[in-house]
Amino acid sequence: MKKKYFNKDFPTLLHGADYNPEQWVDTKEIWDEDMRLMKLASVNEASVGIFSWSVLEPRENEYHFEIFDEILDKIYNNGGRVILATPSGARPVWMAKKYPEVLRTNERGEKMLYGGRHNHCLTSPYYRKKVREMNTRLSERYGKHPAVIGWHISNEYSGECFCPLCQDAFHKFLAKKYGDIDKLNFEWWNTFWSHRFNSFEEIDAPSPLGDTYSALYLDWQRFVTEQTASFIKNEVEAVRTHSTLPVTANFMQHYTQLNYWAMEQELDAVSWDSYPDWHHDAANDLPHTAADIAFVHDTYRAMKQKPFLLMESTPSLVNWNEYNKLKRPGMHKLASIQAVAHGADSVQYFQWRKSRGSLEKFHGAVIDHNPTENTRVFRDVAEVGSFLRKIDGCAGTMPKVEVALIFDTENEWALSKAQAFCRSNKKYYDTCFKFYFALWQRGIAVDIIDANRPIDGYKMVVAPMLYMVKEETISKLESYVKNGGTLVSTYITGMVNENDLCYLNGFPANELGNVFGLVSEEVDTLFPEDSNFIAYKGEEYPVHDYCERIHPKDGAEVLAYYAKDFYAGEPALVKNKYGKGEAYYFAARDDGELSDKIISELAESLSLSVDFENLPYGVTSHSRECDGEKYIFVENYNVFPVTVKNNREMLDLETGATVKGDIELDKYGVRVFLVKK
Amino acid sequence: MKKKYFNKDFPTLLHGADYNPEQWVDTKEIWDEDMRLMKLASVNEASVGIFSWSVLEPRENEYHFEIFDEILDKIYNNGGRVILATPSGARPVWMAKKYPEVLRTNERGEKMLYGGRHNHCLTSPYYRKKVREMNTRLSERYGKHPAVIGWHISNEYSGECFCPLCQDAFHKFLAKKYGDIDKLNFEWWNTFWSHRFNSFEEIDAPSPLGDTYSALYLDWQRFVTEQTASFIKNEVEAVRTHSTLPVTANFMQHYTQLNYWAMEQELDAVSWDSYPDWHHDAANDLPHTAADIAFVHDTYRAMKQKPFLLMESTPSLVNWNEYNKLKRPGMHKLASIQAVAHGADSVQYFQWRKSRGSLEKFHGAVIDHNPTENTRVFRDVAEVGSFLRKIDGCAGTMPKVEVALIFDTENEWALSKAQAFCRSNKKYYDTCFKFYFALWQRGIAVDIIDANRPIDGYKMVVAPMLYMVKEETISKLESYVKNGGTLVSTYITGMVNENDLCYLNGFPANELGNVFGLVSEEVDTLFPEDSNFIAYKGEEYPVHDYCERIHPKDGAEVLAYYAKDFYAGEPALVKNKYGKGEAYYFAARDDGELSDKIISELAESLSLSVDFENLPYGVTSHSRECDGEKYIFVENYNVFPVTVKNNREMLDLETGATVKGDIELDKYGVRVFLVKK
Amino acid sequence: MKKKYFNKDFPTLLHGADYNPEQWVDTKEIWDEDMRLMKLASVNEASVGIFSWSVLEPRENEYHFEIFDEILDKIYNNGGRVILATPSGARPVWMAKKYPEVLRTNERGEKMLYGGRHNHCLTSPYYRKKVREMNTRLSERYGKHPAVIGWHISNEYSGECFCPLCQDAFHKFLAKKYGDIDKLNFEWWNTFWSHRFNSFEEIDAPSPLGDTYSALYLDWQRFVTEQTASFIKNEVEAVRTHSTLPVTANFMQHYTQLNYWAMEQELDAVSWDSYPDWHHDAANDLPHTAADIAFVHDTYRAMKQKPFLLMESTPSLVNWNEYNKLKRPGMHKLASIQAVAHGADSVQYFQWRKSRGSLEKFHGAVIDHNPTENTRVFRDVAEVGSFLRKIDGCAGTMPKVEVALIFDTENEWALSKAQAFCRSNKKYYDTCFKFYFALWQRGIAVDIIDANRPIDGYKMVVAPMLYMVKEETISKLESYVKNGGTLVSTYITGMVNENDLCYLNGFPANELGNVFGLVSEEVDTLFPEDSNFIAYKGEEYPVHDYCERIHPKDGAEVLAYYAKDFYAGEPALVKNKYGKGEAYYFAARDDGELSDKIISELAESLSLSVDFENLPYGVTSHSRECDGEKYIFVENYNVFPVTVKNNREMLDLETGATVKGDIELDKYGVRVFLVKK
Repeated sequence: MKKKYFNKDFPTLLHGADYNPEQWVDTKEIWDEDMRLMKLASVNEASVGIFSWSVLEPRENEYHFEIFDEILDKIYNNGGRVILATPSGARPVWMAKKYPEVLRTNERGEKMLYGGRHNHCLTSPYYRKKVREMNTRLSERYGKHPAVIGWHISNEYSGECFCPLCQDAFHKFLAKKYGDIDKLNFEWWNTFWSHRFNSFEEIDAPSPLGDTYSALYLDWQRFVTEQTASFIKNEVEAVRTHSTLPVTANFMQHYTQLNYWAMEQELDAVSWDSYPDWHHDAANDLPHTAADIAFVHDTYRAMKQKPFLLMESTPSLVNWNEYNKLKRPGMHKLASIQAVAHGADSVQYFQWRKSRGSLEKFHGAVIDHNPTENTRVFRDVAEVGSFLRKIDGCAGTMPKVEVALIFDTENEWALSKAQAFCRSNKKYYDTCFKFYFALWQRGIAVDIIDANRPIDGYKMVVAPMLYMVKEETISKLESYVKNGGTLVSTYITGMVNENDLCYLNGFPANELGNVFGLVSEEVDTLFPEDSNFIAYKGEEYPVHDYCERIHPKDGAEVLAYYAKDFYAGEPALVKNKYGKGEAYYFAARDDGELSDKIISELAESLSLSVDFENLPYGVTSHSRECDGEKYIFVENYNVFPVTVKNNREMLDLETGATVKGDIELDKYGVRVFLVKK
Repeated sequence: MKKKYFNKDFPTLLHGADYNPEQWVDTKEIWDEDMRLMKLASVNEASVGIFSWSVLEPRENEYHFEIFDEILDKIYNNGGRVILATPSGARPVWMAKKYPEVLRTNERGEKMLYGGRHNHCLTSPYYRKKVREMNTRLSERYGKHPAVIGWHISNEYSGECFCPLCQDAFHKFLAKKYGDIDKLNFEWWNTFWSHRFNSFEEIDAPSPLGDTYSALYLDWQRFVTEQTASFIKNEVEAVRTHSTLPVTANFMQHYTQLNYWAMEQELDAVSWDSYPDWHHDAANDLPHTAADIAFVHDTYRAMKQKPFLLMESTPSLVNWNEYNKLKRPGMHKLASIQAVAHGADSVQYFQWRKSRGSLEKFHGAVIDHNPTENTRVFRDVAEVGSFLRKIDGCAGTMPKVEVALIFDTENEWALSKAQAFCRSNKKYYDTCFKFYFALWQRGIAVDIIDANRPIDGYKMVVAPMLYMVKEETISKLESYVKNGGTLVSTYITGMVNENDLCYLNGFPANELGNVFGLVSEEVDTLFPEDSNFIAYKGEEYPVHDYCERIHPKDGAEVLAYYAKDFYAGEPALVKNKYGKGEAYYFAARDDGELSDKIISELAESLSLSVDFENLPYGVTSHSRECDGEKYIFVENYNVFPVTVKNNREMLDLETGATVKGDIELDKYGVRVFLVKK
Repeated sequence: MKKKYFNKDFPTLLHGADYNPEQWVDTKEIWDEDMRLMKLASVNEASVGIFSWSVLEPRENEYHFEIFDEILDKIYNNGGRVILATPSGARPVWMAKKYPEVLRTNERGEKMLYGGRHNHCLTSPYYRKKVREMNTRLSERYGKHPAVIGWHISNEYSGECFCPLCQDAFHKFLAKKYGDIDKLNFEWWNTFWSHRFNSFEEIDAPSPLGDTYSALYLDWQRFVTEQTASFIKNEVEAVRTHSTLPVTANFMQHYTQLNYWAMEQELDAVSWDSYPDWHHDAANDLPHTAADIAFVHDTYRAMKQKPFLLMESTPSLVNWNEYNKLKRPGMHKLASIQAVAHGADSVQYFQWRKSRGSLEKFHGAVIDHNPTENTRVFRDVAEVGSFLRKIDGCAGTMPKVEVALIFDTENEWALSKAQAFCRSNKKYYDTCFKFYFALWQRGIAVDIIDANRPIDGYKMVVAPMLYMVKEETISKLESYVKNGGTLVSTYITGMVNENDLCYLNGFPANELGNVFGLVSEEVDTLFPEDSNFIAYKGEEYPVHDYCERIHPKDGAEVLAYYAKDFYAGEPALVKNKYGKGEAYYFAARDDGELSDKIISELAESLSLSVDFENLPYGVTSHSRECDGEKYIFVENYNVFPVTVKNNREMLDLETGATVKGDIELDKYGVRVFLVKK
């Protein structure tokens, strides 16, 4: 069955934008012009109310909802729908001045001034109370408004607060987790440097003026995540007092300061804000940029195992990069449809209309300062709107996924703080991405998951650099392989428990050593100018950064060897049969060629599903399916046309034509086909 | 009539230096040696009293003027004159300890400790009172001393203070400007991010702990400028209680944190401190370094439309660059006379004698730690002194100027904060300089002015990147062109009003679109590794950074086109006839060659005056004239000799010889000629 | 007579490690395993108690020594000895919470939180009292324990505190030094920028919020050194209440924030922690890395004119570099024996066993997380242990030294703050090292000393860039040369007195001008891309950074001339006969080739002693001798084997064989020979 969010009376894919009519109350003719233009662009949704608090409650307890009343009716009468936001992403000034507790304190203990956004104390009872009141009023007034189809909770939750209220809550968090202070002293290994605490109250949050060691930092990050989740819960409960509509909050790309995996439970839908840095030729080629964003799409779809919403994207450019280059013709359509290909049920923009002033007045928008439909950007947006109508049957469908890749937020925290190896740049994401790219460019569907999620159904699990790993996770991986799974991992795996305490008796820890069939002796961290080589099947592959010296055991098969330095001839890639499954261990960091080769061999031996064989470089394909219908998306990230081999009969949803043979794709071309089974 | 400052009984060009006799009170024989050496170097002026407060008032209300009494007589008897400084540039310690309000508070709210200089709170009533008292005493005691010819107010005003007194004054400044808080909310577009204020008192100065958005920042910078101007006014009023001598304050090169154009009204003369970075071959060739300094000379002369004073320069090297290289032989004379060529009526040094200790003991000086006249530096200084005597007739004369270039300080502020394009480096100055260099190397005189100054008399006005522009300025530019003027501008022009609020209905704003005959659609910001080309008259010129996509209208003439990327074939340089005049619009940033070519064509078509045609590269010429006498300066910034074509009869003021034909200039050569009309 | 520290009942070279049994109290079977492994690795010493305070006194005045009682007996019974540490390097949390005065205040005036280590206020009366009490108890309980052979005071003293207590102590320090505030005003040249103080209490410590000028900074650094020394004295007095064992504190490599030369008097032995960055090929070749560490060895041996202790080194890698590469096979032995070659009487490690958690869990250790003797690291350590037993006769012996090189910590402070030349990087150490390397690679023994130490006995003294030099030092250098010594110096010498006040009448100051036979006129600081050349005996040698223009006098001999720029043909290297001696002055900074050549010529003309002539590049040789026995160490820092010419008969201490002819050394080879005279 299709997994739709907004299926009551409004069954299409959403095409919309953040909309701030409160900025134009002095020129309401602009509101009417907006309605005309939205229709023209096939925009059927608007996210309203983000940052509206100072208009809704300009003075304490003085509420004004007239603007919302008027604009919601207007949108509805224009055929549109609204995802209504709670305004907690930015407080009004009066509140900060009268109740300074709502302001954050930074890690040096400095009280912040009023300013910016996303800056509330996570703990402040007053702010939680005010948010609850505000959200309850919104729920009561608009929870059943015909225009409103869902809730947008706050905006891009982020950051942390170090005020006394938060420090106190942190102590309670620790007391609850550890019970006894000596349990904490042991797990944090506080005898080191005489750091033994006598009570939880003696503990300060991480600070450049105090301590920043990993165990403290890890629990602090968990606390911040938990406190943010409870803040969301408080918001959501209020919203639900008079409404049963789905609730979402917009997450960010590659944001790991919060562990989203421990927050998503508070929400009905995951949405996110996508701002890839296309066309920065010197930084990345387009296929790598595309795969980098696909990685995030696959994360947020996997998080709920449901379609996600693309809550924000830019129709042209952003204004917060160092260089803000225009999206080239064709890229807007390609990038928008890419999101749908990976499971998005919406294409939404920040922002509908550029504001006249302040910080984001030059951020791209559907409507520019010259407020006309005669712009390249408007035409691009309208084209996407029209295309979405043709493929809207795919709303609620999902891909068939056989591979999981573990990219674990808490492990990222631990690696970033690990005083070892290359200190400041472990390249955990880069390493995961290298394996992901090999899969992406073959059109193999992947779920990106954190280490706590189930893995049983997958044919293959890739889990690089799983440095920090809980005992439960070790057991899960062990039984996964024992029962026939294929596990791929690397150097620097299985070293510490969830509190960054080393496992005793060597690495990879506990049963992992048996699963991989090896013992690690030491990790050689190379300088950037150093390199080694791995000899595999008669070829040499360069490796950089890390060369782990390992000793195979229990009959593990050495697939490749080091070719240089004092460990030349020692094993560099090991395969171990364990139970009914197999485990692969890369002891060194190759530059991509060798891992691509191994993934390719595994894809073949495991018969991983793809829609097309032998895709050209820079071209990928993804599909979504349900009830015998399959939507196949083919995308070309090259600046030249390509041909994809095909011999299936498919319906081209844009042209309505039936396709039987090879598929032609223009530069930046994207095509969507329907296949009935 | 000549515009002289010091014409009563002392009619020559000044040749002098900062002089700190108070540092040598324990060894007064050094004072006598100073007198001998000043005479030997033809030094006729000394700037005395800068930073003398702790000697003049060592304890509260205990005054000691004996040192000044003695040294002023000594200088006068030696034939010299004094520009007497007020000591407010550095407070004594006792004052900071007893009255902490005089200390600044930084942008994080941290109270500064005593230390450094130029560090007083701009608002402190106590400090303003003490400065008034001190200056009144100086005026009373020395206002009619025969040695004293003028006043040097404080030193290099700069910086800002964020204490409660200043914040309060800022609130009053805003209340006066906007009257109603909702007027401010509208102009600052505070509905964005819920930033609406209910009163002026709720506003905090810009801070990394709070807000830093452009509208707030702009008004803060205006406030700091106004507060500094009122501080100067307080100083000057006290000085004038017993004196009618001219008053100056020394400005800095390329310093835009204060808007000097809104401060100069408090002063009789503008002076400045010139420290070019000669001989840094890898950073700039010498002609560019020379033109960069000429730009500043032309700014400070245009500011008062009178000669300026070169208040400080180094006779050898500075000590505050990362690398402090010696001035090469010949450069001291060339750089000193360059200042006079552009309108300086003085050549003054920091410093006469190196101090024995503290921060500037290795800054260049006329007299070194080995206190002898047998040094290269002393001989160079003496040579300049002797040369100045030969050209002193030029004091008070002015150039004839037909071209104005607008470099606007407030626009620089707005661009530096604009969250758009290339975020951190808009290159506003570099863009203005590129046009300036094209004029400078042709010997075309230029006034550098801010956007509020009149432009009616000029044949041509160059106004690149005038992003922030008031409605009055738009009208001024419009009527300038309509009445026959020639206006040259570029991409990113006419976008926001003086509060950084975007003009509605597109760019360039309002009548500017008609003046230039075009509508802008979007600005493509390129990465540093990107480039495009402009095709003009069969040649291709490279462009970088910005390519604006524009649509000509009303019959505007497209002079050149883009040659690359998706806007290949679109217009890149447009000329529009408007009324009796013409406007040129560069849509992209060329590397200098194309703009040089256009300036060259305009110089010819507008018959701009020069003293010599076809100057070799690195050679320039400037003149000053009055009452039928014209002083022509020719300067060679090449490291080899050059010949300048000439067929006029002129008197060489250095040699006394009459010159009729070509002029020879040595490496770093400079010659000054007199022509009688 | 041999200068031994631990010669009562334990006469061998020490082989040991930092040992933290308190981290493993919950698993005491690990203690027993440690004993077994220590014996296996020929480890005969353990440094116990560093950072143990929170275990020894977990709550105020509640003491627990049971762990120490047990482990000391266990070590002794295992044949080992202990250097017992005082725990002041890290306070327990309870103390910081109850007595915040023990916490430091940073240079911005921010009170630090509890955290890290080496972070006590230097002045806090409470902390000094607690340290005295703790140390007295340790002395009483263990001062006569048979295992204990010495005391390790705290750990790596470092840092500074800016709290009111320290500021007050600073005022007293200044009052004691200067007596009268106007004496300070004169020496600090406070009339500059109106900085005259009326009392010592008005002076603030250096701060980015206030002043940072050199004279203030110099006295502050002296104060911090003195306060640290008095802290040590307080510790040592307590330790000596019940013990007569030798006392040491571990110094750091290249650490110049404290002046160790003004602290070592409080200690019986100097020890230090050596962490060379071997194998970073892009940063340095191995011979330069080796010589860089040899420089430090020669410093700490010269400091006491006695053997020193190598207190810490890593058996494998560290974890605090940006890249933490493994020590290559052979390097551990070579680096360990190098220390002994330069005068170490111990080889000790941080750390015996890797801790399970916290910041240093991945720092190299003898025992890894996989706690077995079957590792490369353990075998390397055991090999060193075994080798040390074979050469232990050298304990207490010393080299014969004929050359001193002055590297003066206070001069380093002054140069680092000098606002002149190249501002941020004077390269004082690099310049000294360049001369040192020329000596090291010839196997010439050198004492590295500060400028206050006697120099009479040396054949040659090298004193580059002695910018800051006291009058006494000038006299000492003058009489050294007059009496027949050879002095080698460079540009930027003899400029300021100990308070950074310039000497009057030119440089090099006072008699130094006569000693070197020259007057300096000016220093040309070059940009990195600039260069000049020195012509010497028909060859040209490149110079960078500095070219001083000098004028020889009194018949000084010009050995070499500048070849370029406006001072081409002027003198660049001058030799002056003065009294019975000679002085050499390099006016410019050569790249190493010229200084190497001059050192080579001086070594020959002064007949400096070496054990082998014509050592290959990357090979050096050092010796220690006493009572007719000479231990000769030969070390090869090349990655290939070398042959050293020899015709002396020597006993190879490792093999027991007698060697007569040439000596073969493997890659990273090291051999030790005994010669009886």
